[in-house]
Amino acid sequence: MTRYQHLADLLTQRIRQGLYQQGERLPSVRSLSQEHGVSISTVQQAYSLLEERRLVLPQPRSGYFVAPQKAEPPAPRLTRPEQRPVEISQWNETLALLEARKDKAVFPFGGGSPDISHPTLKPLWREIGRVASPQRVEAMFGYDELAGNRELREQIARLMLDGGAQVNSEEIIVTPGCHGALSLAVSALCQPGDIVAMESPSYYGTMQMLRGLGLKVIEIPTDSQTGISVEALELALEQWPIKAVLLVPTCNNPLGFTMPLARKRAVLNLAARFDIALIEDDIYGETAWQYPRPATIKSMDEEGRVLLCSSFSKTVAPGLRVGWIAPGRYYDRVLHRKYIATTSSPPATQTAVATFIREGHYHRHLRRIRQHYQRNYDVLSCKVRSLFPCGICVSRPQGGFMMWVELPEEIDLTRYTAQMQQRRLHLAAGHLFSASEKYRNCLRLNFAAPFDEKCENALRNIGEFFHEVMRKG
Amino acid sequence: MTRYQHLADLLTQRIRQGLYQQGERLPSVRSLSQEHGVSISTVQQAYSLLEERRLVLPQPRSGYFVAPQKAEPPAPRLTRPEQRPVEISQWNETLALLEARKDKAVFPFGGGSPDISHPTLKPLWREIGRVASPQRVEAMFGYDELAGNRELREQIARLMLDGGAQVNSEEIIVTPGCHGALSLAVSALCQPGDIVAMESPSYYGTMQMLRGLGLKVIEIPTDSQTGISVEALELALEQWPIKAVLLVPTCNNPLGFTMPLARKRAVLNLAARFDIALIEDDIYGETAWQYPRPATIKSMDEEGRVLLCSSFSKTVAPGLRVGWIAPGRYYDRVLHRKYIATTSSPPATQTAVATFIREGHYHRHLRRIRQHYQRNYDVLSCKVRSLFPCGICVSRPQGGFMMWVELPEEIDLTRYTAQMQQRRLHLAAGHLFSASEKYRNCLRLNFAAPFDEKCENALRNIGEFFHEVMRKG
Ligand SMILES: Cc1ncc(COP(=O)(O)O)c(C=O)c1O
Ligand SMILES: Cc1ncc(COP(=O)(O)O)c(C=O)c1O
Repeated sequence: MTRYQHLADLLTQRIRQGLYQQGERLPSVRSLSQEHGVSISTVQQAYSLLEERRLVLPQPRSGYFVAPQKAEPPAPRLTRPEQRPVEISQWNETLALLEARKDKAVFPFGGGSPDISHPTLKPLWREIGRVASPQRVEAMFGYDELAGNRELREQIARLMLDGGAQVNSEEIIVTPGCHGALSLAVSALCQPGDIVAMESPSYYGTMQMLRGLGLKVIEIPTDSQTGISVEALELALEQWPIKAVLLVPTCNNPLGFTMPLARKRAVLNLAARFDIALIEDDIYGETAWQYPRPATIKSMDEEGRVLLCSSFSKTVAPGLRVGWIAPGRYYDRVLHRKYIATTSSPPATQTAVATFIREGHYHRHLRRIRQHYQRNYDVLSCKVRSLFPCGICVSRPQGGFMMWVELPEEIDLTRYTAQMQQRRLHLAAGHLFSASEKYRNCLRLNFAAPFDEKCENALRNIGEFFHEVMRKG
Repeated sequence: MTRYQHLADLLTQRIRQGLYQQGERLPSVRSLSQEHGVSISTVQQAYSLLEERRLVLPQPRSGYFVAPQKAEPPAPRLTRPEQRPVEISQWNETLALLEARKDKAVFPFGGGSPDISHPTLKPLWREIGRVASPQRVEAMFGYDELAGNRELREQIARLMLDGGAQVNSEEIIVTPGCHGALSLAVSALCQPGDIVAMESPSYYGTMQMLRGLGLKVIEIPTDSQTGISVEALELALEQWPIKAVLLVPTCNNPLGFTMPLARKRAVLNLAARFDIALIEDDIYGETAWQYPRPATIKSMDEEGRVLLCSSFSKTVAPGLRVGWIAPGRYYDRVLHRKYIATTSSPPATQTAVATFIREGHYHRHLRRIRQHYQRNYDVLSCKVRSLFPCGICVSRPQGGFMMWVELPEEIDLTRYTAQMQQRRLHLAAGHLFSASEKYRNCLRLNFAAPFDEKCENALRNIGEFFHEVMRKG
């Protein structure tokens, strides 16, 4: 990171924390240059960056001021999904979204990949380069323990402590990604025909998995900043024979919220009252922009009722396909399910990841990407505002690299699937995140990659398309 | 391989092919030395080896003779399983067998690993060392195509041609091992409660998977040299609403047979007549000791009725967890099931394996291990005869590295599980291979590793234990 970026980040943080109020004058270029021991031009570059991010406004001859808040678009409101169990469809559209990955010329706004080009990942690549050395062949390429590599499970147990959960390595099962973990959890708990409660909107991949297993989903209204409505969930639990609740309560995908701790506790209490399992998808938890990371629901679970699912797909790299589950009292059932689906996991990648964590590289990497994604958000949200039609809402994530955009109500993206494909506009359309095909005027954008020209052009094309659609009515 | 081993192999082959008949005199030491351009002592070493394998008998002053066949123990007869659908149990015992892997002090006679220490695998280890080079990170550690790495699928399509099946890369799905492939096949085809027909005995891992998915198994009598009884299968199909037939028709585990082509065809015809799917587990097919390898049932399938499942677990290394399925007309369903269970596979190992095959190393490796396993069989079967009680039957595999031993009827191994664990005798007990717990006097031995002192000691301990059991009655 260059000096001016560093300075700009510092000022951004101060503004966010309210140290400088809306409309207040910011320190002069000269005084910042002295305070931080950097050149005048470095401070000027930092201020231009903040201007670009619409956080400050220059006033000729009197310096920079904190930009009025109204420049930020509102966050989306509480969602209003269909509140009855629904069968999920849209498999073909999901498949099309996956297929689009193949086309490397398309900018993957609709994808789920983190930025894996970061130099802080180099120690991992080095470690992977070493797994196949002659003395290690037997250990790295024989059959592994069914629960997963012991060393990795020990490191994961430590990571889980960061989220406040005390779990030992014997209570953890390594899985093929977080999706694999969720699939095991659900098939260990549910039968075809059962109902699962979820946030609305919810990640389409998990919904497709539930559907494939023959389950129904009830979508619960969800606030874009505080998460699932506890009241609505309670009502649903009273009304329907719900088998499990499945949540992404920390750095949610797609909305980006982290539930306040009290609400996490309230949901856990509900699960206890109705004596059902709670599946906590923590895949983005460690990408939280705040430090230390927010506590998991699992950290409050004294009954072994929570099955925590996660992976290194968003924090490190999705192609590792290394995830895990801490299934609490359902351990035996989940281990059996793992055997049924895949038997043991590949030892080599697991060992490399374990070393990467043990040597401290993982936490160093996390610190870096946290800042990186936060910065990308500032830039992208600002660009979205300038390139998209007026009247949009934009989510304010607390971690991760996903942005949820609500377009004006009259736009129904399901009507333009073919056109968008033709123009190679790759985005995750909102209705995929709903079993009842709500959110037709919404979309999810990935901002993991730094905002470069290619990205800007792709975003401009999307923006222009929306303008066109609006014009034609 | 040393010269004398090479010569011994050559002579073994000739004897097996019947070029020298039982009791016939073999060429003199001198003439072989001239014919092959090797020293007298090399020929003598070769003959000693053959003597050890009990293939030849020395006659003082007149040379070596082909040993009478009766020195070989008989092969097991047609099996007589319970011929009605049965629910499979024994999960805890299977788990114990898996757990035993952890104890590195125990010789893994009961395990399923091939020999992965072969130098012919070096090019693969080198390739794996290279996957994480900087320019490749995006391709190797991003999300992969759902069906699997394109390049690997192309190489697999070529391998399948060796077994006579013309399948293109678009018809192949990469899976987490062969187990993963079978699990997808079964869950795509069957519902809980359905009945699947299998050989008896059958690999316990697959039976446990079927059980976990809520299915019933009907075990069909099977000949230890020609495979499943077509007549018995026909009767079962007439009598029960069987949903699919699942076979390991080439280099079967545990019996080692390869079904003659005509019987393979007959089974396919039955599947067609009853309009059901045929799941062909070809995991050992490429370890066939004969060259070229036997044709698959898939090679005769014109209706897309056969789902061929396989992996590199037995030919290369199980810890790769790279398998595949060619699901014929069930492609869409199986691909959907893959998404549900795990989504995409890790690209890095797939790419390394693809390169290993493309550059010819895979076929070179196959040539080597074919000889290696065949030689190990000769030694182990001979040692088993000398260390185990009299009156045993030993299977005569046509490939792979598994030997099935039938002990005298009065031994019931299920009564000695705890004792054998205590003595750290690791073997796969016969009843695990039967849903109805038959084969209590049988066991399966792995002969992948070269027969060294450690192996001999372990075998001796097993033999002594059986002798004790017999003495005590
Ligand atoms: C909320 C959520 N859960 C689960 C997954 C699946 O993760 P993995 O790639 O580790 O299987 C994703 C991936 O996009 C996700 O966003
Ligand atoms: C007959 C048979 N099928 C399937 C499997 C599972 O193979 P994989 O390790 O590739 O999942 C095995 C492994 O022992 C086997 O012997």
